[in-house]
Amino acid sequence: MISVTEAIETLLAGSRRLVEAENAELMTATGRTVAGDLVSPVYVPPADNSAMDGYALRFADWPGAEAELSLSQRITAGSVPSELETGTAARIFTGAAVPPGADTVVMQENCEESETGVRILKMPAQGANIRPRGQDVEKGQTVLRKGQRLRPQEIGLAASLGFAQVSVYRRLKVAVLSTGDELVDPGTEAGPGQIYNSNRFTMNAQLAAWGFEVVDMGVARDEFDMVKDMMLEAAERADVIVTSGGVSVGEEDHVKAVVAELGDLGLWRIAVKPGKPFAFGHVRGTPFLGLPGNPVSVFVTLLIIARSYLFACQGTEDRGLHAVPQKALFSKKSSWREDYIRVRSGSEGVELYPNQSSGALFSTSWADGLVRQATGSEIREGELVDYLPFAIFS
Amino acid sequence: MISVTEAIETLLAGSRRLVEAENAELMTATGRTVAGDLVSPVYVPPADNSAMDGYALRFADWPGAEAELSLSQRITAGSVPSELETGTAARIFTGAAVPPGADTVVMQENCEESETGVRILKMPAQGANIRPRGQDVEKGQTVLRKGQRLRPQEIGLAASLGFAQVSVYRRLKVAVLSTGDELVDPGTEAGPGQIYNSNRFTMNAQLAAWGFEVVDMGVARDEFDMVKDMMLEAAERADVIVTSGGVSVGEEDHVKAVVAELGDLGLWRIAVKPGKPFAFGHVRGTPFLGLPGNPVSVFVTLLIIARSYLFACQGTEDRGLHAVPQKALFSKKSSWREDYIRVRSGSEGVELYPNQSSGALFSTSWADGLVRQATGSEIREGELVDYLPFAIFS
Repeated sequence: MISVTEAIETLLAGSRRLVEAENAELMTATGRTVAGDLVSPVYVPPADNSAMDGYALRFADWPGAEAELSLSQRITAGSVPSELETGTAARIFTGAAVPPGADTVVMQENCEESETGVRILKMPAQGANIRPRGQDVEKGQTVLRKGQRLRPQEIGLAASLGFAQVSVYRRLKVAVLSTGDELVDPGTEAGPGQIYNSNRFTMNAQLAAWGFEVVDMGVARDEFDMVKDMMLEAAERADVIVTSGGVSVGEEDHVKAVVAELGDLGLWRIAVKPGKPFAFGHVRGTPFLGLPGNPVSVFVTLLIIARSYLFACQGTEDRGLHAVPQKALFSKKSSWREDYIRVRSGSEGVELYPNQSSGALFSTSWADGLVRQATGSEIREGELVDYLPFAIFS
Repeated sequence: MISVTEAIETLLAGSRRLVEAENAELMTATGRTVAGDLVSPVYVPPADNSAMDGYALRFADWPGAEAELSLSQRITAGSVPSELETGTAARIFTGAAVPPGADTVVMQENCEESETGVRILKMPAQGANIRPRGQDVEKGQTVLRKGQRLRPQEIGLAASLGFAQVSVYRRLKVAVLSTGDELVDPGTEAGPGQIYNSNRFTMNAQLAAWGFEVVDMGVARDEFDMVKDMMLEAAERADVIVTSGGVSVGEEDHVKAVVAELGDLGLWRIAVKPGKPFAFGHVRGTPFLGLPGNPVSVFVTLLIIARSYLFACQGTEDRGLHAVPQKALFSKKSSWREDYIRVRSGSEGVELYPNQSSGALFSTSWADGLVRQATGSEIREGELVDYLPFAIFS
């Protein structure tokens, strides 16, 4: 029996990036992983510019609130100013470049314009309302790091530096295979003894949401040859294979035997609830993760164990998931396994879903996160617990 | 000047769903919004089944640890059991239906099988290791609510009930238009006085990440007729129009004038930092949101103000964003505006990005969330503050 931390560390120690770099259009690169540090070729802003609609002048030229300055130019955003004539002011708008010679911008609310010029009623400090060149980003500054996953704000940031494309890692191809004779596809009729295959859908949806390219292999019957053929095809078509079911001690499980024949197989008993049986190995050199068969175990082990490994295979840096302390609105006995409990958070604390069975997939939909209960620790109502909102696994 | 809460409430009060329902393939429906309550047509599990690999028997038939029971059948997952013969046991595997007549399953670790039968060394309580029919979901139970946004676990859940398709609302079409003569597209050369257009990219990426269908209108020069033509086209092609820039008091802003001519216009000064100027109205009946022009203001007002409104227009229920209490590692004076500060969280608390300028887009990339500083409230180092991780806006 190994701990969750050991399982993750062992997986990560055996991982390497399996994908190469490629260029992507910046506009649609959200969720992709940066393949090399991105260094800014420009200053942002490119020149000193006005933070306000108002008037630009040389601080020393201010004649006092009563006297008028003549207006020598009008500078809109995007236009190129000429040098400011001594003793004059320039009408200026937000984002427009400050003319050489001016060192201060006065917001228009503190000015009074006439037909002949402008009076500045209230003078701010020298240098006020000017955003200096490079204030946001310096030329040569590293703005995106290799391995970083692009969020919408990074798309905007890269655009602001003039990039229309970005070098990213190819999406990791993940083959998904579920096993089990009892499984039928939704949309068909389930006979006696049969159940609808949910694992295929949970895995496909979650892996796609993480930005991986899913190779959907469908379902393999519990027959050695069929499992073998499908595993060989999966190893051919994908970078990593993820299966559900077929890795526990029951004798009807062929996934183990197939992997052992075609490569190497580690069968783990992880001290985690749900999700104890977990397999790891290679099929003709292609890494293989064997998730358990129960629907909740599949979901939890995907989030807690498989996710970090898959991201590592894609070269994606995973910042580590911070648990948030939340008040437990329930009590729960200690367990010898690390327990990932489905909970829902509210203003009072986190509430327990009553049915924590590994078959109760509805619990994952009812919930908005997991509480991690450490091995051997008891949860007492009113105490703080480690809450992991589902949103942090996105 | 209105508060953020008032702004959001006013927008929501004037909102209505603008999209109709359609059928979507379940497998690719993550992020879509459920258009009607989904009621389970089946029990999950469909029959009492075994939670373990082991032996099923009638509790009353146990002859004690020394005596053997003969094995009358072997039940794998997916097969249909026959009635259990009195005084016998059935070999059974995880997920397999419990045979009529059996009321208890014994895990195989507590049994000893011989060639002639099985001895049960340790008998559990009556009813043990059986998952009753409907334990996860009852027939007739509402499992997905109208307005709910589908996560991967809901895709799995709907599949487990036999659905291959799901009724969802059509994706909201959002037209995105940025304005400004100073803007050039990334990938081209920026001349003096020009800056790269980041708002177009931030808006496109964020709206697409939320699952909207983005109608990218590009950039409008600061010319009344061009803005007017593009706004008319946007109103024609999209359900909602979102613009950046052109809504402050400066005289170079044509968006306001165009919207006022083509529909109705409300110009707000929201007590929010960044993002004070905000416009709302209609263009020939199509709702219009006018975000400010500064890159950080665009990002923050998208998250804090536009998001709820756009989801409402798509019929998507928005559960409300819970702030998380975190310790401030910085002090900050009070402001007359509600301030959304870019911060990064760590094990000690949340750290401030030093440059909180509304032009400093790098702050949004450096950060992993926002701290909401209420109007008039001071932040003192070591105190708890309201932290909003970016992940909750996903």
